[in-house]
Amino acid sequence: MFSRIALAKMIDHSILRPDATEDDVIRYCDEAMEYHFASVVVLPYWCQVAERRLRGSDVKVGTVIAYPLGAVPTQVKVYEARQAINAGATEIDVVVNLGAVKSHDYAAVQRDLEEVVTVSNLAGLTEDGDDISTKVIIEVGLTTREEQTRVCRIAKAVRADFIKTCTGRGPRGVAVQDVKHIRQAVGREMGVKAAGGIRTIEQATALINAGANRIGTSTGTAIVEAYDQSQGAVTEEVLR
Amino acid sequence: MFSRIALAKMIDHSILRPDATEDDVIRYCDEAMEYHFASVVVLPYWCQVAERRLRGSDVKVGTVIAYPLGAVPTQVKVYEARQAINAGATEIDVVVNLGAVKSHDYAAVQRDLEEVVTVSNLAGLTEDGDDISTKVIIEVGLTTREEQTRVCRIAKAVRADFIKTCTGRGPRGVAVQDVKHIRQAVGREMGVKAAGGIRTIEQATALINAGANRIGTSTGTAIVEAYDQSQGAVTEEVLR
Repeated sequence: MFSRIALAKMIDHSILRPDATEDDVIRYCDEAMEYHFASVVVLPYWCQVAERRLRGSDVKVGTVIAYPLGAVPTQVKVYEARQAINAGATEIDVVVNLGAVKSHDYAAVQRDLEEVVTVSNLAGLTEDGDDISTKVIIEVGLTTREEQTRVCRIAKAVRADFIKTCTGRGPRGVAVQDVKHIRQAVGREMGVKAAGGIRTIEQATALINAGANRIGTSTGTAIVEAYDQSQGAVTEEVLR
Repeated sequence: MFSRIALAKMIDHSILRPDATEDDVIRYCDEAMEYHFASVVVLPYWCQVAERRLRGSDVKVGTVIAYPLGAVPTQVKVYEARQAINAGATEIDVVVNLGAVKSHDYAAVQRDLEEVVTVSNLAGLTEDGDDISTKVIIEVGLTTREEQTRVCRIAKAVRADFIKTCTGRGPRGVAVQDVKHIRQAVGREMGVKAAGGIRTIEQATALINAGANRIGTSTGTAIVEAYDQSQGAVTEEVLR
């Protein structure tokens, strides 16, 4: 079985409600430091608050770009990502341009992702050494398996770090089959972040077993608490 | 009763699904020209497509900024609005910073809206004479009456043109009481756009009677068709 800390370090503790207050964001940061989560994921407005609270800790600041619909011009995504990185974000979850996917304009899909990933990687080089991690959200509830495969290949080609399954605001959350499909499409070197409706240790374990190596959830604390009471159910092999 | 054309000119024909294709956007533009709607409202990525299709017609290009969550830094909203205006949008529906509202940081709420409205108004002056119309979305399903009143006053103070009730992606759609409350808060000079779950001529009529002078809906064609079959139910007095 993997350790509590290894589980916690797979969790992105996410607070993406639009009506979350500054106090809510600070509470999530404090929980993330206590549980040693990978990151706190906040809406872009809150990056500065999260960065101040998390400074010096082992918890990263994550945010979401063009969230949750993905349908802004590329230069707006790039600008938003730059601002977020300047404000302290080092994990950038960007929503693919779903309208372009559905219009079969994969050239536009690729240019869009390439620019956001490139600006993020360059920003990481010029800042204080923190690598910027990029995740491409493909919203499995709105895309076919074939579309998902194509976006996975594009994301890998432009050197994004992760594929992320859902925004949490789409028509449905993540299923085990989604993760299996994506893991197959991207191979073993790329990250797969399962997100969307994950509330229990059983769900998290099943998704990790299916190939996810990051879990996005607003209930990370409850999941880790439940882990403490169910040790032994999760096997070592799933750890990458 | 008011005329079919007067009803149509109160309707923002809105296609804000993230998976809408270029063909869907073009179809909405063509319907809007046929029915003489006030505008077509598209996600920012589609402004250029809509502008090309609607050029020379009596239908404006509208879009949504920081949609649907509102929680990006002010400079990102300003940049996104500028890009949208450059791409041809003349109606800018911006989501208020709900997190700042809920954190009681009304100074931030005001600065945020003031900058977006100002950049839009200035852009209107430098372009080919088209006035830019700004609408502040307050998401009634996430705000209390008191918070709505405060945002209404701020939006009026910074010279926004409309208050808009909902994104259509919040916890609920618009109710007659919302429009009554907002109309009371802003007085008679400011616009009130009812949006969110409006699908029938009965709903549209009730909201107009309550004080709305713009209706945002994805089913404008069905509403106008239904009007044709129900003339007489809507009285002249509701026209402003």
